[in-house]
Order: sequence, then structure tokens, then C-alpha cells
Amino acid sequence: MRDALIAAAFQLFLERGYEQTTIDDIVSLAGVGRRSFFRYFPSKEDVVFPDHEQVLADMTAFLQESEDADDPVVRVCDAARLVLRMYAENPTFSVQRYRLTKKVPGLRTYELSVVRRYEHTLAEYLRGRFAARRDGVLRASVVAASVVAAHNHALRSWLRANGQGDAEAEADHALAYVTAAWASGQSPSGSPEEEDDVVIVITRRRTPMWRVVRDVEAGLGPE
Amino acid sequence: MRDALIAAAFQLFLERGYEQTTIDDIVSLAGVGRRSFFRYFPSKEDVVFPDHEQVLADMTAFLQESEDADDPVVRVCDAARLVLRMYAENPTFSVQRYRLTKKVPGLRTYELSVVRRYEHTLAEYLRGRFAARRDGVLRASVVAASVVAAHNHALRSWLRANGQGDAEAEADHALAYVTAAWASGQSPSGSPEEEDDVVIVITRRRTPMWRVVRDVEAGLGPE
Repeated sequence: MRDALIAAAFQLFLERGYEQTTIDDIVSLAGVGRRSFFRYFPSKEDVVFPDHEQVLADMTAFLQESEDADDPVVRVCDAARLVLRMYAENPTFSVQRYRLTKKVPGLRTYELSVVRRYEHTLAEYLRGRFAARRDGVLRASVVAASVVAAHNHALRSWLRANGQGDAEAEADHALAYVTAAWASGQSPSGSPEEEDDVVIVITRRRTPMWRVVRDVEAGLGPE
Repeated sequence: MRDALIAAAFQLFLERGYEQTTIDDIVSLAGVGRRSFFRYFPSKEDVVFPDHEQVLADMTAFLQESEDADDPVVRVCDAARLVLRMYAENPTFSVQRYRLTKKVPGLRTYELSVVRRYEHTLAEYLRGRFAARRDGVLRASVVAASVVAAHNHALRSWLRANGQGDAEAEADHALAYVTAAWASGQSPSGSPEEEDDVVIVITRRRTPMWRVVRDVEAGLGPE
């Protein structure tokens, strides 16, 4: 019944447009009553994004199962992959919806709220994992936002290519970018002094070694 | 007239609630006609956030004035400070609005769209600056999201403290965090090979220098 409602809704959205389609139109095409619609979907927007609630629940469970040995940044990247997989499992539907969302401002707003909920879920987990760090809350917000941006970059370019190509490989590439920036300074134990303990040296290939050593020594400071 | 409408609107929002206040109530308290309201504000949401359009325009202009010598990540951090300054200039109003927005889902959604527009403006500028990089578009999205997250972290903690404390200092701290992660690998000239050219070595204070040198050499690779 749920799938029939989604199919009927999308058929009508594509035929006559999203705004021009009423919930009555949808239930009448699906051959069910209005109450059945609202049993599955709180609103017309929700039938456009029928799987986000489930993925949000899966993501929360996945993060709760995380162990102390897991690198928290790697873990949130894996959590973001759950969203991507939901899109990649059904390319035709995902691409149709992407085109529809681009045309309907109300759907874009709805999507922004969903993205915000994902980001919030990731940030909450990270706040727990970074609790011992001085800048834990800030780091959690920035890492969560980076992960969401990288994920959305991969998802968007896959959708723009009409669902052709390997969405998961694109996401791997984009998320590796974030992991490289943020995962490295973090050991799983996460002691509060740890951040001060890490020295990051950025240099160029052509820099002579004596200069690199001098810079590293300057970064290490007096013992 | 514009300020009188904002003052009247907020007085009513605080007295009887946002949803319970109509545009007619606002114009009647301000002693003007409905047309005057719509000359300044397209909707009731806009009177809650009267300055975002101006700040968005200022931000766009500020980024357009950017020169090649400016580090692009530092530039977007400075652009984000324009938003913060707008809040910090009027602590009482900003804190009132923060409390109101928390209570009204429609305003939170509106705020999300505004934040998205800021992020989009920053990302667009960064895409231009990173055009020569292989991962320029991805980097632009991730850096813009990081900057917005850091800015919002600072803004939120200042608002939660009822506008007490130094909002700009909090933003400096949060944005420095982002600059440290993303600005370093970028030289203003921005050649496409540049990213491969940079070697990042992460080490710990207690690591002996011979190991650091070995790691740097491994990172530098054969000449």
C-alpha cells in the first residue's frame, strides 16, 4: 500500500506537477482512502522523501553501536554512506525526485530540514566522542558539516549525471577528503591534552630537509 | 517606517506569540497601511530577519572585491564575520529573535534557507578561487560548510549566553579552527599541481626527530 501510494504520487507529480497534485488525487489513483495516506505520510512532502525517517533511525542505531576503538570521523563518514546507499539503490526514483525537488521551492525547504537532521545526528554523536576535548563541541559541528557537505557533493554529482556512474565510489573519494582533514589528529582514546600534543607540519616537496627539521623543531617546542 | 514596523512586529510577537500575530496587527500598531509593510518585507518571516538581504549583498560585494593575493579561506572567514557583526550590533534584538526562532518551526525553516544562501555565496566564491584544483568544487563545498558551521557555533554560544561576552572573539577562535584545517594547503596562486606539491606530516611531541625526518622523507617521495 505504501509503495502504491508513492508510485501513484510520482506518476501524478510528473504528469501534472507537484503543486497541482492533491492528496485526494493520489489516494484516488492508488485506490485507497485519505486515512491510509496519512497512516504512512504526515504530509504531501513526506511522500516525496519516503525513506528519510528510516535512514535517520538506521543512522542513529549505527552510531549508537559504535565502539571506543572506532575513529569517530570514520564512523560518521560510514553513517553518511547509509544515506547515499538509499539513493543509489533506486537511481530512477532518485533522479526523478532530484528534478522535482529542483522545481518546487517547498520541497527544497523540506530537504534542507532533513539534511539538517542528519547533520544534527552526526554532530550529536561526535560531541559525545569529543567530550574530553577542549574544543569538542566546535569540532563536532565542523566535522559533521564537512561530512554532510562532502556526502552531498558526491550525491549531487551522481544525480546530475542521471544516476549513471558509481555513487559509492564518488562518496568514498569525497569522504576521504574530509577524513584526511579531520580524522588524523584524533586517536580513539581522546584525551583532552591530545590536541596540544599533535604537531602538524606542512611543507612543500622542494623544501630542503634542514628547513623541514627546523620547522618541526619549532613546532615541537622545548621538551 | 521600516524600523517602526520591526519594532511593532517584535512587540506583538513577544506579547501574543508569532503565529497569533497577523500582518494587519503589525501595521495597525505601527500606524501604517498593509502596502507599506509589503514594500519592506515580502512576508511575515522577513520582518523577523530584516537584515539578511543586506548582509548577503554586502557579503557578495566583499567577495567580489577579493584579490588574488588574498587567501580564499581567510577571505570567506572574513565574509562570515559580516553576518556575526550584524547580530552582535544589536544583542537585545538578536537574543529576542533567537528565542522566538527556537519556538516557531516556520522561522527555523526560514533561517535554514538563509544559512544555505550564505553557504552558497561562500561556496561560489571558493569554486572560482579553487577552479584550477582537481578537487576544487568538492573543496569549495566542504570549506564553505566548515566556515558556516564554525560561525554558527560561535553565534549560537553567544546567543545562548544572552548576548553577553565577546561574539567577535568567539568567532575568531572558531574560524581560526577552520583556517588551520583548510587554509594552509592553499597558496594564493593556486596552480593545479599545488595540492600534490604539499606534504603534510602529523606527528606528536614525543616523537624522536629521526622518525619525523623519515616520515617527511617518505612523504616527499623521490625527487
